[in-house]
Amino acid sequence: MRVHNFNAGPAALPLPVLERAQREMIDFEGTGMSLLEHSHRGKAYEAVHDRAIALLRELVGIGADYDVLFLQGGASLQFAMVPMNLLGPGKSADYVLTGSWSQKALAEAKLLGTARVAADPSVDKKFTRIPKQGELQLDPGAAYVHITTNNTIFGTQWHYVPKTGKALLVADMSSDFLWKPFEMNEYALIYAGAQKNIGPSGLAVVVMKKELVAAGRKDIPVILRYGTHAENNSLYNTPNTFAIYMVRNVLEHVAAQGGLAQVEKHNRAKADLLYGALDADADFWRCPVERDSRSTMNVVWRLPSEELEERFVKEATKAGLVGLKGHRSAGGIRASLYNAVSLESVAALCAFMRQFRKTA
Amino acid sequence: MRVHNFNAGPAALPLPVLERAQREMIDFEGTGMSLLEHSHRGKAYEAVHDRAIALLRELVGIGADYDVLFLQGGASLQFAMVPMNLLGPGKSADYVLTGSWSQKALAEAKLLGTARVAADPSVDKKFTRIPKQGELQLDPGAAYVHITTNNTIFGTQWHYVPKTGKALLVADMSSDFLWKPFEMNEYALIYAGAQKNIGPSGLAVVVMKKELVAAGRKDIPVILRYGTHAENNSLYNTPNTFAIYMVRNVLEHVAAQGGLAQVEKHNRAKADLLYGALDADADFWRCPVERDSRSTMNVVWRLPSEELEERFVKEATKAGLVGLKGHRSAGGIRASLYNAVSLESVAALCAFMRQFRKTA
Repeated sequence: MRVHNFNAGPAALPLPVLERAQREMIDFEGTGMSLLEHSHRGKAYEAVHDRAIALLRELVGIGADYDVLFLQGGASLQFAMVPMNLLGPGKSADYVLTGSWSQKALAEAKLLGTARVAADPSVDKKFTRIPKQGELQLDPGAAYVHITTNNTIFGTQWHYVPKTGKALLVADMSSDFLWKPFEMNEYALIYAGAQKNIGPSGLAVVVMKKELVAAGRKDIPVILRYGTHAENNSLYNTPNTFAIYMVRNVLEHVAAQGGLAQVEKHNRAKADLLYGALDADADFWRCPVERDSRSTMNVVWRLPSEELEERFVKEATKAGLVGLKGHRSAGGIRASLYNAVSLESVAALCAFMRQFRKTA
Repeated sequence: MRVHNFNAGPAALPLPVLERAQREMIDFEGTGMSLLEHSHRGKAYEAVHDRAIALLRELVGIGADYDVLFLQGGASLQFAMVPMNLLGPGKSADYVLTGSWSQKALAEAKLLGTARVAADPSVDKKFTRIPKQGELQLDPGAAYVHITTNNTIFGTQWHYVPKTGKALLVADMSSDFLWKPFEMNEYALIYAGAQKNIGPSGLAVVVMKKELVAAGRKDIPVILRYGTHAENNSLYNTPNTFAIYMVRNVLEHVAAQGGLAQVEKHNRAKADLLYGALDADADFWRCPVERDSRSTMNVVWRLPSEELEERFVKEATKAGLVGLKGHRSAGGIRASLYNAVSLESVAALCAFMRQFRKTA
C-alpha cells in the first residue's frame, strides 16, 4: 500500500510516472535495454532529452531568447555557478535573505566576489515573512538580485515578483518550480533542483537569457561555465540520463492533466484545505508564518508542546502519513504539498489532525 | 529480448540489478514509497547510502585513512575539483597525456594553476600506447601526478602503477574502476564516473587520503571542497540517491559473485576471446593499439575500409549486437566489455565476426 508522502524533497512522484519507469526498466521502447544502459549520444536517449526540454519550454512558455540547461550538482552547485559566471571583478550582487538556502547562496557569492544583503526583514532571524517591495534596499548598480522564491524550512513563499530596476533578477525556484504558471521574462536566470516538483534528485534545471550565457566569464573551469552546457545542449559531459527521463515523464503527466493552470488550481486547493484546518483551531495549531507570506508548498506549524509534536509525528506515521517532522533547525511540523501530493493525501492529513485534536 | 550491449557508457548493467530496481520501483522495502521518493535524511535511504560505501570499502580493501565520497558532476567535474583543491599558489602538477580525457583534465588544471605534461609518448598524436615508467618525465616537486588508467576512445590501458617518488598519484579510473582488485595505498586520490562499471550516470566516486582532504584549499566555493562532502558523509546536499542505490545493488551483485578476483577472471576471459579473434586474422581486423597497452575494457579495431566498417556496424546492430561504432574522433569499431557484459555477448560478437569475414 502506498503511504501519504509529505517529504520535503526528494518527495512524492506521480504514481503513473513510477509505473511507467517500472514497465520500461528492463526494455526501453523495444530497444532491448534499459534507458539506464543507453548511450547519451544515441538516438533513443536524445529523443527523451530533447522532449524534456521542449515540454518545459511549452509548459512555462520559455522564449527562444532563453537557454534551458540540465545540470548536475543540484541548487547547491548553482549557489557557486551563478556568481562564478556573473560576478566579475568590480561587480556586486544583491541577495535577499529569506532563509537558510539564501544564506548559503550568499556565502558562496561572498567567497567569489562582492555580495551584499539587499533586505533582511527578519529582525528576530526566524524568517517568518517575505519582505515587501518597499522594504528591499537595492543597489541600483548591482549585477543581479538573488531571491529564493520558496523557503522549505520556514514555510514562506514570494507571492509577488520584485522590481529590481536595471539589475537582473536571479531566482532559486528549487522548491516551487512549476507550482503554477509564471512569466519567464521577469527573470534573467532561474534554477531549481528537480527533487521537489519535477523529478528525482541529482538534477538541476537552469533557464537563463542567452545574452547572459554569452556574457559569462571565460576564466573559470570549462565544466562550470554555463556557455559550455548551452553550446552542447547539456550533453558536454554525460548527464544524469535517468533523472532527465523521469522529468520528461513528469512533464508529460502535467501536460496531460491540462498544464500549469491546472497544477496551480490543484496546489491552491491543497494549501487552502490545510491552512483552513490550522486556522480553524489557531490556539492549538500555531502557524508562525505571516499570512501574506505563507507557502503553498511547505506548510509549517507548531503544537502547544514539543512532546505533543513528537506524539503527532509518531502517530501520523503509524496512520500512513509520513515525512511530517519539521526541519531540525526549525522544529515543529512540516507538510510538503508538492505537485505530486494528492488532495486526498491532504484530506487524510486533516482528518488525522481532527482526530488527534480530540485526544490531545 | 535483451540485446548484446557494447555501449561505451552509459553501458550494460547486470540484469538481476535491473530486475531488482523494477521490483522495488513503486514500494521500496515495504515503506509504501519508491526509493526515489525517500528523503536523503531518512533511515531507509541512509542505510542504502552507508551500505554502498561499506561494500566499496570491503571489495577494494579501502583503509580507514581514506574517505569515500559520492559526488555529482561526473569525472568532468573532478577534472576541475582536483586542481581547485590540491593545486595551491606556487604548486605545479604533472599530467600524463594518454587520450582525450587526460587532455581535458590537463586543460582544467592549466586554467587553475601550473600544470605540465609529464610524458607524451604519442608522437603521432594517435594515442596508441601507454608510456613506460622510463619514459615518464616527472617533476620531483610536483604536487601530484595525474593519470587516466583506461582510455575509452583509443582502447589503451595502464597495466602497471607508475612510481612517482614523493609526488601523490591521482588517477581517473572512470572506465576501468573495479575491473579487477587493486591496491588503494598506491594512490592518493582516485575518481570514477559510475556509468561504466558500477552504475548509472550522474554519479562520481572519489576515494582520497583523509590527510589530503584536510589539506585542501579553503578559499574555493564550499560545494567544490572535498572537505565539505567528507565531513557530511556525502550528504551535504541532496545526492543522486537513485544512482547510489543502483551502485549498492551492483556492488552486492559483485560481492555475491565472489568479489573482484572473480570479476577480473571474467573480464580477462572476455578480452582474451575478442583479441584472439582479432589476432587470428590480423590482416583483416587491425587493432592499432600496441600489445602491452591493450585495454581489457574497450577494444578498438579497424576494417580494411570505412565502407566495410559501416556495413559491419549496421549488420551487427541488426543481429542484436549494439554500440559497436567507434568514437567519432577515432572512427572504426569499438566494443566495450565492461563488467556487466557477459562472456556470451562476446562469444556472440566473435561468431558474428567470423560470419561477416566470410562474406566481406
